Amino acid sequence: MLSKNKVKHIKSLQNKKFRHEYQQFLVEGAKSVTELLQSELEIATLVCSHAFLESTPIPKRHKNIEWFEVSESVLSDLGTLMSNNAALAVVNIPTPAPIQVKPNSWVIALDDVRDPGNLGTIIRMADWYGIQNILCSHETAELYNPKVISATMGSFLRVRVEYADLSLRLPELKLPVYAADMKGDNVHTVTFPSSGILLLGNEANGINPRLNPFIQSRITIPSKGKAESLNVAIAGAIILDNIARISNK
Amino acid sequence: MLSKNKVKHIKSLQNKKFRHEYQQFLVEGAKSVTELLQSELEIATLVCSHAFLESTPIPKRHKNIEWFEVSESVLSDLGTLMSNNAALAVVNIPTPAPIQVKPNSWVIALDDVRDPGNLGTIIRMADWYGIQNILCSHETAELYNPKVISATMGSFLRVRVEYADLSLRLPELKLPVYAADMKGDNVHTVTFPSSGILLLGNEANGINPRLNPFIQSRITIPSKGKAESLNVAIAGAIILDNIARISNK
Repeated sequence: MLSKNKVKHIKSLQNKKFRHEYQQFLVEGAKSVTELLQSELEIATLVCSHAFLESTPIPKRHKNIEWFEVSESVLSDLGTLMSNNAALAVVNIPTPAPIQVKPNSWVIALDDVRDPGNLGTIIRMADWYGIQNILCSHETAELYNPKVISATMGSFLRVRVEYADLSLRLPELKLPVYAADMKGDNVHTVTFPSSGILLLGNEANGINPRLNPFIQSRITIPSKGKAESLNVAIAGAIILDNIARISNK
Repeated sequence: MLSKNKVKHIKSLQNKKFRHEYQQFLVEGAKSVTELLQSELEIATLVCSHAFLESTPIPKRHKNIEWFEVSESVLSDLGTLMSNNAALAVVNIPTPAPIQVKPNSWVIALDDVRDPGNLGTIIRMADWYGIQNILCSHETAELYNPKVISATMGSFLRVRVEYADLSLRLPELKLPVYAADMKGDNVHTVTFPSSGILLLGNEANGINPRLNPFIQSRITIPSKGKAESLNVAIAGAIILDNIARISNK
């Protein structure tokens, strides 16, 4: 049975301070926990419903983890999802590792993207387009925020996220930097190279001018309406889709 | 000064039941309220900071509305935003009007898109691409949910949203229906007509099979990675961008 202390510990991980203190985070929901079980990450505790245990194969290496079978109402109460009828895992935060850029691949760089939902959605779409590396400024939302992890729909397991000072890291990567901007070249007419960095800025303020020296090109999505801007994840996805065309021709 | 009853009334509009009962909704934040003041909508109450009042021109027709100048902490407490240092308005819900389709234009149809943030983001991107009409199934998120209104960033003022039974309304519009689907034609190679309907489905279950008879074509965004799907707003934006290319050639 789940002790009161265990419940308190799990709930505390909704809070950044305790994620940092315990170096653990939460993974919630059937899809994410099923993918987690197939990954290399170290699971500290698994809390799940009877139905989830019955239907999900648990790989051998996880046979000795601490686990609890609970009702759906206990599960929903423990976590951050509106409803969770399947599973929740406490996972040890892995040692941060720098991004690893392979030839003919793109990197996404995020300059102060603050909204956890936006970061999670960007990780998910990066995974869709086969982008394995995301570089985040230190002020970007925290990867292990439960809202980020949920919005990735499991893609946090396949995309490497590094936090760094962009003005130091961007030049080190030696790739052309394309910035999403309101005033730039039309994304429909630009010819993108096979590798580069797509730089996306803060939801309210765009890209910090201190990054200007590192930007080779600015890209704009042509508008036919009256909205002043697009959501940062939406803009990023549209540009990525245009980049993806180069290898579809 | 704001009376206790007024505070209670304003806060009650965070709840769908009371929005329905009073036929009113909330608009929050500097950008949205500024655009609201320029629109035709009927404002019942305006609550704002001294700085907002100083810097925002109030059109003549609103000179007689009930308004209150309050501190930023009162403003944030009244509404749903994490912080709001500018303004909040109580607005009368206008009489629902059917969508109006003009020649050479596209309509977005949403089949049970439940998440308010997704609906708001879709309205914002529709406005970016000059799409003025969105048709929603009755189970789609409610337009006047504060999370929807906030995510539109003012675009709810320019996009017409109609709730209807899609199986009745889709055939009435007499336009080809293109459904976003996991198994369809590659969005990069399809030639889109100058008008049509882009149909997007529920976040978890996709498009309801009962709508199959109305679908002329299914469209897929090619993936190069391992994510199983894209967020519905992201997928919609990518397809809209590909549709927008036809008039950029």
